[in-house]
Amino acid sequence: MKGLFITIEGPDGAGKTSVVEYLYPRLRQIAATDIMKTREPGGIPIAEKIRQVILDPQNDRMDDRTEALLYAAARRQHLVEKVWPALESGKIVLCDRFVDSSLAYQGAGRRIGVEPVADINQFATEGTIPDVTLYLDVDSDTGLQRIMASRRNQIDRLDSEGLQFHQRVRHEYLKLYEANPERIIKIDAKQRLEDVVEDCFEVLVSRYPQYFQ
Amino acid sequence: MKGLFITIEGPDGAGKTSVVEYLYPRLRQIAATDIMKTREPGGIPIAEKIRQVILDPQNDRMDDRTEALLYAAARRQHLVEKVWPALESGKIVLCDRFVDSSLAYQGAGRRIGVEPVADINQFATEGTIPDVTLYLDVDSDTGLQRIMASRRNQIDRLDSEGLQFHQRVRHEYLKLYEANPERIIKIDAKQRLEDVVEDCFEVLVSRYPQYFQ
Repeated sequence: MKGLFITIEGPDGAGKTSVVEYLYPRLRQIAATDIMKTREPGGIPIAEKIRQVILDPQNDRMDDRTEALLYAAARRQHLVEKVWPALESGKIVLCDRFVDSSLAYQGAGRRIGVEPVADINQFATEGTIPDVTLYLDVDSDTGLQRIMASRRNQIDRLDSEGLQFHQRVRHEYLKLYEANPERIIKIDAKQRLEDVVEDCFEVLVSRYPQYFQ
Repeated sequence: MKGLFITIEGPDGAGKTSVVEYLYPRLRQIAATDIMKTREPGGIPIAEKIRQVILDPQNDRMDDRTEALLYAAARRQHLVEKVWPALESGKIVLCDRFVDSSLAYQGAGRRIGVEPVADINQFATEGTIPDVTLYLDVDSDTGLQRIMASRRNQIDRLDSEGLQFHQRVRHEYLKLYEANPERIIKIDAKQRLEDVVEDCFEVLVSRYPQYFQ
């Protein structure tokens, strides 16, 4: 793979979506090559259909392992149709959530266990690992408060989780960060949005001068 | 699990569906407990929706590993909602296709590899293995001729496979049979339907006298 694969991770309320919204155009201005932002299911029809099954509130009998397999399936198709072709053509890919999200949410949050969830994601990704992961860290109280305050969309099946769930998710993110210090960069996401964006920007520019000039 | 978990396997054209149609009522007449026949997705809404994604001819860009993950997801939900509750209440479950099908079709037929497909199915089933598997063996020429002759339904995405694909599937079934002689019983499915049904019946009655009296 010739391109650069960047992922953004973090618990709910870390502000990932807003960060990507401001970070992406800044990166594009100085990128030495094409840059694409995406997130699963990313407009890939098969992945979109799988995501509909996951999020349908009628599917309230969804087993946790069924859900984890569906996330892995949608991830696979998004990789095959969108991420791999972009990386192969030398692009920079900025992806909102990837395998770490499944480890934190399904593995730890839903208590399936991180190792089995890693195994099915290994099957799905065939070992594709991001070059760098920006982990937006925020404590669970702050994260949940932000979600409650900013909730604009319809609440889906996955929102109805409590504080303990979100604490398990964040705890797992911190463990992943400690276990992968080369790949995962922790960003303080309790800061103001513009400071979070600035930190992300600085990390990428200093780490990859050949891509961001 | 207190019940008895029977699966029926075989390549396309082995006559599984017809065999189950005749075998099931005969078994029910002599069963010492409730008996249920099923096949994935088995009327389980979540599994049915997953199956729709797999079989939709529009989804012609479906990656082989995505497909394998979706089969595992549908299997999981069918187990959780239908098979496990039946086995836990002591029933006999007669299931048309199970993990062996994925090993033969996705692992060997689609060349993903049997071991990785076994891994994701281990995740899905948490180690649930049939008590006995009736493997209906038929050579690929005969199997394909039967499919061509009897095709009544609309052709779906999975039918458009060639002879070599079917040969890989059968070859893997034979390997599974050799590796699991205690669990898998090979039945000659080139015989007339009534003889195949009779062989299946005799195997089950002699092996499980406590269930079939």
